[in-house]
Amino acid sequence: MSTSTLEVSQAPVRTTAATKFVALKGDYGTGDFVMHRGGILKEVVIAYESWGTLSNNHDNVVLVFGGLSPSAHACSSEQDPSKGWWEYMIGPGKPIDTDKYYVICVNTLGSCFGSTSPSSINPDTNQAYGLDFPDLSIEDVAKSAHHALQDLGIDHLHTVVGSSMGGMSSLAYALMYPDEVDHFVTISAATRALPFTIAVRSLQREIIRCDPAFNNGQYAQDEEPTSGMVLARKLGLMSYRAAEEWHQRFNRARVSAERKSDDRFGIEFEVESYLDYNAHKFVKTFDANSYLYLSRAMDLFDVADHGGSVNAGLAKIQAKNTLVIGVETDILFPVHQQREIADGIKKAGRPVEYVQLDSINGHDSFLVDEEHFAPVIREFFERNFNN
Amino acid sequence: MSTSTLEVSQAPVRTTAATKFVALKGDYGTGDFVMHRGGILKEVVIAYESWGTLSNNHDNVVLVFGGLSPSAHACSSEQDPSKGWWEYMIGPGKPIDTDKYYVICVNTLGSCFGSTSPSSINPDTNQAYGLDFPDLSIEDVAKSAHHALQDLGIDHLHTVVGSSMGGMSSLAYALMYPDEVDHFVTISAATRALPFTIAVRSLQREIIRCDPAFNNGQYAQDEEPTSGMVLARKLGLMSYRAAEEWHQRFNRARVSAERKSDDRFGIEFEVESYLDYNAHKFVKTFDANSYLYLSRAMDLFDVADHGGSVNAGLAKIQAKNTLVIGVETDILFPVHQQREIADGIKKAGRPVEYVQLDSINGHDSFLVDEEHFAPVIREFFERNFNN
Repeated sequence: MSTSTLEVSQAPVRTTAATKFVALKGDYGTGDFVMHRGGILKEVVIAYESWGTLSNNHDNVVLVFGGLSPSAHACSSEQDPSKGWWEYMIGPGKPIDTDKYYVICVNTLGSCFGSTSPSSINPDTNQAYGLDFPDLSIEDVAKSAHHALQDLGIDHLHTVVGSSMGGMSSLAYALMYPDEVDHFVTISAATRALPFTIAVRSLQREIIRCDPAFNNGQYAQDEEPTSGMVLARKLGLMSYRAAEEWHQRFNRARVSAERKSDDRFGIEFEVESYLDYNAHKFVKTFDANSYLYLSRAMDLFDVADHGGSVNAGLAKIQAKNTLVIGVETDILFPVHQQREIADGIKKAGRPVEYVQLDSINGHDSFLVDEEHFAPVIREFFERNFNN
Repeated sequence: MSTSTLEVSQAPVRTTAATKFVALKGDYGTGDFVMHRGGILKEVVIAYESWGTLSNNHDNVVLVFGGLSPSAHACSSEQDPSKGWWEYMIGPGKPIDTDKYYVICVNTLGSCFGSTSPSSINPDTNQAYGLDFPDLSIEDVAKSAHHALQDLGIDHLHTVVGSSMGGMSSLAYALMYPDEVDHFVTISAATRALPFTIAVRSLQREIIRCDPAFNNGQYAQDEEPTSGMVLARKLGLMSYRAAEEWHQRFNRARVSAERKSDDRFGIEFEVESYLDYNAHKFVKTFDANSYLYLSRAMDLFDVADHGGSVNAGLAKIQAKNTLVIGVETDILFPVHQQREIADGIKKAGRPVEYVQLDSINGHDSFLVDEEHFAPVIREFFERNFNN
């Protein structure tokens, strides 16, 4: 299966020794990847990482879609021993047990961790795409992952699992390739974005675009719109976490005198310092154009586009077992949207387990709340291993 | 009582024919207004409007503090027949009935609708203060209103009522001048800002400060940081309203083709258009430096500064009757913060009525939800008229 793996002499930035690449054969082997909302990408590459061993009959594959921010590095490995974004969840003896399962995490098409994205070179022009990159849809993310797996010789999934944006991608995958998905896990996802969430993301995008350094997407790699990205990320962090968590964690604590800025409106409270630190850390790793495309893909996604209504779209899913997880403190993908997914699949006559967790960490709970998430995921994967 | 009213030959911008002014005599008649966190303002002016008739024994005065955004124009009048920000609440026969009460609404110190603010001329330099304006505190807002009333010959309030930032101002007023406040109404306020709310406001301020046109507060009046103000206001609007309201109102409706921008990331959804329209409308009226100072004053305010704890601060309030109103969908000043106010005053042995409304309009409900708010306020003011 490594025959179709791309040998990348010069690995794209923001990848590691653990990153592997598939050069997609394209739709029907044409080399062209036709985008869901129009436009064509050529020579598409999907970056991924994998853990565990593929079984002889290929019946133990778990495909993982992450959120907007992370790379394919969900978990550490010999090639890259640094902690992955879902380190507690994937690995030998862990809830998604790589002693049993072969786990693949793809870097989302359009993201900046090795998959083809707006910062990739357009073979037609020999320039980076920038905003000439075509409209990106969640359906493109699902299709590109499907192409990657096919090109790797994998035509069937034991489970597709996704969280946040990855939950949308996994929803798209499960309804676009229903015969190839035995089990389905969606966490803090949505069938479609609602206006509050659209407003948050739209404002993030506008903040980035208002940074003069953005330059309509034609910024040099060392002159990225950092200021706009920092502000947008702060807004993101505010939407990812929960007010009560911050109340318990920071309350009204002030930063120490030596960390306080002289600026009259500079950082004074610990919560401001926390946001500032994390936003700056993030923007060192992420490309602004990728952020815009991925963010908008979430706004545009609508399960109702697949059959005329949300329930008609969900009815396409044929998984033997579905697990839907929602978090009560999530303001970005609220629990009523998780129930909508569970109810729709159930209505179509498929078994669904709906779990609502009272994690305090808001939308980001799946990343940090091992205590609540690990047992639920472990039980699902243990129960369905030979199923 | 008009003897101390300032004759303003050149009315400041952003005032109308209905705006009246008091040139404060200053602390102890010195002309100096000493600020709560240090610094002195000279020649402070407070803009206000009033409705109704002052009774002979001055026992019918209602002082109204508004939120961050509005002017003193809470209600229409002959001088300014345009609708005020609380038009449904104040007027003849209305819940705060100007056939009975003499209602004064002050423009907050630091705001840009006629009261002394960062855009005022510093008499020491003959330049606009800009960021040389001293730190503004909610306590300064309360004290300046108190000075204004004293200079107008009013030394006692039937009721002080405030909403949002004005709720904080009314809290400060009631605990700083306990002997002069007979009744107290606070709506969607807080004894202190919690970290989620601090984060929202801190990010708004940073967005404004990141606009190159902000120029560290030294912008010309025709070169204001409009782009930053628009972005900050959009974030404000998102925090003022409620997700469910927008879900019902906009859902995923798209703007019509002719209103759609050509920009790949331009406005597509009605909710984006709504935010854009309202944010642009707002920034035409509001000064960026005022926004920064008022916003930060809310972060800094803490009832616990008055006595060592929130309850010790609340215990200073001596009002015969207090009405505390909270709204269940308010994410900025959540109901647990309203209960904290009510519980603290009750614990000190004063009568409190706590009303929790299920308005759908979030923090802004008091502005728009006449159906829920009017009866509660009407009943309070009717019951306490001769009390």
